[in-house]
Amino acid sequence: MKVLVLDVGGSNLKLRVTGHEDRTKIPSGADYSPERMMADLKRATDGWEYDVATVGFPAPVVDNRLATEPWNLGTGWVNFDFEKEIGKPVKLINDAAMQAIGCYDGGRMLFLSLGTGLGSALIDDYKVIGLELSRLRYSSKYSLEDRLGKAGQEVSGRKKWEERFHRTLKMLRMAFVPDYIVVGGGEAKRLRNAEDFRRVDNMAALEGGERLWNDERFKL
Amino acid sequence: MKVLVLDVGGSNLKLRVTGHEDRTKIPSGADYSPERMMADLKRATDGWEYDVATVGFPAPVVDNRLATEPWNLGTGWVNFDFEKEIGKPVKLINDAAMQAIGCYDGGRMLFLSLGTGLGSALIDDYKVIGLELSRLRYSSKYSLEDRLGKAGQEVSGRKKWEERFHRTLKMLRMAFVPDYIVVGGGEAKRLRNAEDFRRVDNMAALEGGERLWNDERFKL
Repeated sequence: MKVLVLDVGGSNLKLRVTGHEDRTKIPSGADYSPERMMADLKRATDGWEYDVATVGFPAPVVDNRLATEPWNLGTGWVNFDFEKEIGKPVKLINDAAMQAIGCYDGGRMLFLSLGTGLGSALIDDYKVIGLELSRLRYSSKYSLEDRLGKAGQEVSGRKKWEERFHRTLKMLRMAFVPDYIVVGGGEAKRLRNAEDFRRVDNMAALEGGERLWNDERFKL
Repeated sequence: MKVLVLDVGGSNLKLRVTGHEDRTKIPSGADYSPERMMADLKRATDGWEYDVATVGFPAPVVDNRLATEPWNLGTGWVNFDFEKEIGKPVKLINDAAMQAIGCYDGGRMLFLSLGTGLGSALIDDYKVIGLELSRLRYSSKYSLEDRLGKAGQEVSGRKKWEERFHRTLKMLRMAFVPDYIVVGGGEAKRLRNAEDFRRVDNMAALEGGERLWNDERFKL
């Protein structure tokens, strides 16, 4: 099945279709709307053929619908009918969960994405569970996102940020008892010590969007 | 299918078999061993008929095996061959996860058990995920178990304990995005405000052990 995968991020819209090697990257931003996305999509995919689509989105998704507006894009997303506008069957999924699928290798995997914010998902025997672990406490004053997101890194510097990351990983390993932990996202490459996790690049997101349709073992 | 359900707790061993209305309760304790459990089991179930068994246990379970010795019982449990000793097919499961199954009503449910410690499990579309959320941070100094377990309640009093509980529930609701939260365990009845969760009694554990065999939708 030919899958169009859209990865809607706070800085860029990334897209690819099964069979193409390259991905297309188009700037998004804090006022990015569904209408602009559709216009970008039409220009970028002119002449492409695909049967179905996956849309990865930086917000929690429940029953193929966005549960909240994304905090780092424009508005109008919650009630946007992706399936109608794209004109193909669409699976809507949290962006971290999509990336997690792209690097899943069986068992129980905890996935974290270090970007502007902190994304997270758990996959256990191909059952994909979108999580918002960014909302967990790092201390009584700060959340994990406060301390591990880009803002937290800028405030206290890379080194302290990395120390906090490894401390958090230890806590999450005890709480979720995963077989392995995978870390992706644009900031992951800034971690110097990668002994306690596997690192993955951002192409995993586009692969995840394809696998979600083409590997029937995955359940949302 | 007739199921023998054992709920091995830090204070008591509870057991029941499908078709019996009453449960049997036998004291356990900090030095309780698998050998004593087998002796208790033989006395209590003399003449009972059953096809299979479920054993709920206060420790993380991975692939039908205990991952660690329980901290509130004696030792020798990790390598104990329940199936061989009981002589029937056995499903081994974390006790909070077993109780969670007993009160599951579809969708994504987060389950917490307030007892001596803090037990937890997530069920999403009948996929059962044992968790150890007790290990999450309440603050930089204390874990959730430190602050919500019985010891935490004794140190700071019921009222503060309940305030902390509701604060924690709010955090977990954001992090796990559940459709509903259920709270069980012996200390749950001490919560005065039950507006933000559903309360369940301890019989749910024994029902969960039965459902695990008799309702094929559940996956461990």
